[in-house]
Amino acid sequence: MHARPTIGNPGRGSRSWLGVVRDAVDGLVKHSPSRFAILVFAALILVFTLLFSLPIARAGEASSAPLHDALFTAVSVICVTGLSTVDMATYWSPFGHGLVYLGVNIGGIGVLTLATTLGFVISRRLGLRAKLMAASDTNPSRLHVGPVAERQAIRLGEVGGLLFTVAVSALVIEAALAIGLMPSMLAAGYDVGHSIWYSLYYSAMAFTNTGFSPNPGGLSPFEHDYWMQSLLMAGVFLGSLGFPVIFALAKAWRTPRKWSVHVKLTLTTTVILFIAGAAMFILLEHANPKTYGHLDAGPTIFQSFFMSAMTRSGGFATVDMHDLYGSSQLVSSMLMFIGGGSASTAGGIKVTTLAVLFLAAVAEARGAPSMEAFGRRIPRDMLRLSVSVVLWGATIVAAASIAILQITKAPFENVLFDVISAFATCGLSTGLTADLPPEGVYVMAGTMFMGRVGTVTLAAALAASTRRQLFKRPEERPIVG
Amino acid sequence: MHARPTIGNPGRGSRSWLGVVRDAVDGLVKHSPSRFAILVFAALILVFTLLFSLPIARAGEASSAPLHDALFTAVSVICVTGLSTVDMATYWSPFGHGLVYLGVNIGGIGVLTLATTLGFVISRRLGLRAKLMAASDTNPSRLHVGPVAERQAIRLGEVGGLLFTVAVSALVIEAALAIGLMPSMLAAGYDVGHSIWYSLYYSAMAFTNTGFSPNPGGLSPFEHDYWMQSLLMAGVFLGSLGFPVIFALAKAWRTPRKWSVHVKLTLTTTVILFIAGAAMFILLEHANPKTYGHLDAGPTIFQSFFMSAMTRSGGFATVDMHDLYGSSQLVSSMLMFIGGGSASTAGGIKVTTLAVLFLAAVAEARGAPSMEAFGRRIPRDMLRLSVSVVLWGATIVAAASIAILQITKAPFENVLFDVISAFATCGLSTGLTADLPPEGVYVMAGTMFMGRVGTVTLAAALAASTRRQLFKRPEERPIVG
Ligand SMILES: [K+]
Ligand SMILES: [K+]
Repeated sequence: MHARPTIGNPGRGSRSWLGVVRDAVDGLVKHSPSRFAILVFAALILVFTLLFSLPIARAGEASSAPLHDALFTAVSVICVTGLSTVDMATYWSPFGHGLVYLGVNIGGIGVLTLATTLGFVISRRLGLRAKLMAASDTNPSRLHVGPVAERQAIRLGEVGGLLFTVAVSALVIEAALAIGLMPSMLAAGYDVGHSIWYSLYYSAMAFTNTGFSPNPGGLSPFEHDYWMQSLLMAGVFLGSLGFPVIFALAKAWRTPRKWSVHVKLTLTTTVILFIAGAAMFILLEHANPKTYGHLDAGPTIFQSFFMSAMTRSGGFATVDMHDLYGSSQLVSSMLMFIGGGSASTAGGIKVTTLAVLFLAAVAEARGAPSMEAFGRRIPRDMLRLSVSVVLWGATIVAAASIAILQITKAPFENVLFDVISAFATCGLSTGLTADLPPEGVYVMAGTMFMGRVGTVTLAAALAASTRRQLFKRPEERPIVG
Repeated sequence: MHARPTIGNPGRGSRSWLGVVRDAVDGLVKHSPSRFAILVFAALILVFTLLFSLPIARAGEASSAPLHDALFTAVSVICVTGLSTVDMATYWSPFGHGLVYLGVNIGGIGVLTLATTLGFVISRRLGLRAKLMAASDTNPSRLHVGPVAERQAIRLGEVGGLLFTVAVSALVIEAALAIGLMPSMLAAGYDVGHSIWYSLYYSAMAFTNTGFSPNPGGLSPFEHDYWMQSLLMAGVFLGSLGFPVIFALAKAWRTPRKWSVHVKLTLTTTVILFIAGAAMFILLEHANPKTYGHLDAGPTIFQSFFMSAMTRSGGFATVDMHDLYGSSQLVSSMLMFIGGGSASTAGGIKVTTLAVLFLAAVAEARGAPSMEAFGRRIPRDMLRLSVSVVLWGATIVAAASIAILQITKAPFENVLFDVISAFATCGLSTGLTADLPPEGVYVMAGTMFMGRVGTVTLAAALAASTRRQLFKRPEERPIVG
C-alpha cells in the first residue's frame, strides 16, 4: 500500500502533486490490484451514499433519505444489482434518477474494467488492451501461460486505456439499444422527452445488468410489447457475457472455431443454462394461475425465456417473484447463484466457474488425467480456483441467509431468493428486501458488496498469490464420499 | 455382469451349483464393486419391501401396508435413514419391529462393509482386512499409492472376512451401548422384557445412525435423562466416524500422532462441525419459546450439542424440527448435507470431502502448490473426486427438492430440510415426509437410495475408472470467478 519512489521512472521530469498521487495509485494497482478494486468500489459507494442522502435527491418534500436507504441504494446502483428498499420510480427526484443513471454506468463500466484487468493479472506478458483482444481472439496460444509464479505488473496507464475501450464500447451498445427502445416508449404513450430519457435509462439498466425501471409500474406498460422485452433480453444477454466474449463476437463472429476456450465455454454454458432454465420455467409454471397459467403457449414460452435470461443477472421481471411456485423460486435461485460470464456486469460465481467444476467431474468419470474442453486442456489449478470461488459464494449466501432469517423470521424461500439475488447482483426480489428493518438492509448491502467485489477480486487475488515451495511432503490419500 | 469361466482357477476341483453362483458373484465383485454394491442394496430393499407388505408385519387388524409405505420403510431401514411415512412405534407388529431391528443392522453393517471395501479399491496391493488396519494404522506409508491406473481386484472371500470383522465389532459396540441403556429403560418404568428390547433397539438405532424409536412418544420419556441421551450421542458419534477411525481409536488411542491422515482429518472436521453446530444452535435457538427458550443455560447447551451430533446423521430429536427457527433449519440442513465420516453408517457428502475442498481453498489462498494436512500432501486427484461427489449430492438434492416442491407446494424450508435429511440418510424431519402423497413418497425413497448407495459407490467407481491417455492437448486458461 506504499507509493514507490519514482527514481527509475525516466518518463516524468518533475515531481508535481498530481505525480505523487498518480505514482501512489500506480503502486497500489501494481502491487495489489484486488485491494485497489475494493478501494475504488468502496469510495464510489461512499460518494453515492452522500449524494443520495442530499435532500435534493428526494422527490416531493424536502426530507432526505435515511442512511440505510441511501447506503443500500448506492450499493445497489454501484454494484448494478437492482434491488431496492424504496420505490425507485417515485422515491427519488430527477436529480436522484440522474444519479442512478450515472451510478449504474460508472459501476457497470468500472466492474467490467476491473474484472477484465484482474482476470488478466494471471497473464502478464502483454499490455492489458492486447490481453483483452487476445482473450477474445483467434490465436489462443497467446494466452498460454503457466500458473503465476511472480508478481503481475499492471500500470495505471494501461488500466486507463482499457477503461476507455470498455467505456466507448459500452456506450455504443447502450446507444444502439436506446434507439431501438424509442418506438416502444412512444407507443406506450410517453412524450418525446420522457421517451428519450426512458430509452436511455432502460438501455443502461439492461446492458449493465441492473434492472431498475424509471417509470412507475415497471414493465407493466410493456406487458405485450415483445419487441421491447426482446431488446431488454438482448441487452442483458450481451452485458452478462463479459467483454472478452463481446469482443470475440464483434471481431470474429464469422469464425467461431477460432474463438478462445474462454469464449466458447462462456457461450456454451450460457446458452445451455438459458434453454434449460426456460424449459424448467415452462414445465413448472405453465399451470400456475398467478404467473403463466392464463397465457397461451407462445407467450408462456417467451416469458419463460425472458425469466431465464433475467436470472443471468438482469433483474427485470414481468411477473411477481412472490407468485412463483417454490420449485421455480429454487430454480431461479440456482440460476442466479451461477450468474453470468467472467469480466461482465453480471454477478454470481460465473458460468465458467461452474463449467470448470463440471469438466472436472466429467474428467473424473471418464478417468481422463486432465480437464478438457474444445480440444484444449484446462490447467489443473483452475479447479482449485473455481472451488475457492464457489466456497466463498456459498459461505456468503449461507451467512447472510442465516442472519436475515434470524432478523426477520421470514419464509426461507423468500430469504434465500433475495439473498442470492443480492449476492449475484441480480435484483429480482420476492418483496422481502423492501420490507427489511435497517439491520437487515445493512446485511443485504454487505452481501451485494461482497458478491460484486468479492467474486471479481477473489479469483485474481488467489491466482496472483502462488509462491514457490522448496520441499515436497510425503503424499497420503484420505477417503472421500 | 457375466460369470467368468472357472478354467484357470485351480483352487476348486468340482463345479457345484454353489460354485457357479459364487464365481459369478466373485466376478461381479472383482469387475465392478460399485455395481455389486448397488445390486446388494436393491435386493435387500426388495426383500424387506415384500416382508413389510405382509399382513403379519402390521399391528392390530390384518390389513397389510400399502406398497409405497412398505417400500419407503424398507428403504429407510436398509439405508439406515430413520425417516418414516407412518408412526413407526404403533404401525408395525412385533414381527414388523423385529424386521426393522434386523434391517438396520444388515443395512448398517452392510454399508460399512461396502463403503470400506469400495473406499479401499483405490489401494489394491493389500488384502481388504489388512487395508482396513492400514487406514487406521500408525504407518501411513502403507497407503501411499498413486492414482489408480489398473483394475482393482477384490475377491468375495476378502469381503466376507471384512464383513465378519465389521459385524463382530458393530455387535460388540451395540451390546455395550445396550447394557448402558438398561438402567434408563427400567427407570422410565418399562418392565424387564421391554427394557431389554428397547435397550437393544435404541443401541442399534444409535450406532447404525438410524434414529427410530421403539416406544410411542419417542425420546419424550427420556427428556431429562442425560445419561440416556449422552449414550445415544456416543453411539451416533462413533457410528458416524467410520470403521477406519473406530479401528484407529481402538488400537492406537494413546498415540494420536501416528494416526493416518484420514483418521486425523475425519476427527478434526467432525469435532469442528460438532462444536460450531452446537454454538450456532445456542446462538439462534436460546430465545425460541418453542424449543430451548424455557430451558436454563446448562440444558440449552446440552441440547444444542445433542442436536448438533444428531445432524451428523443420527436422526434422534428432543425438539420438533418444525419448531426450529428458519435460521436453525438452514444450519441443520447444511450440517446434514455434510454428514459423517467415510466408510461409516452416516450419510451426506462426508466430512473428508468437505475438508478436501477447504484444504484446496486454503492452498489456493496461500499460493501453495499442493493441498496439505497434518504434514502430508493430499494428492491432487482427490479434489476432482471431492468436487464430483459434491456436484452429485447437490444435483440430487436440487432435483428432489424441485420435484417435492412441485408435488406438495409445501414451504421451502420444510422441503429442503426433509430432502437433505433423506439424501444424507439423517432422518430428522419437519413432519413433511409423513404427509407426502404416494408420488412424493417414491421421490423421497429414491433420494434416500441415491444418497446412501450413490455417495458410497460414486467415489469408488470414479476412482477406479482412471485410464491412460496417450497424447497431451495444448493447455488454455479460461477466466473464472
Ligand atoms: K442486476
Ligand atoms: K439416520
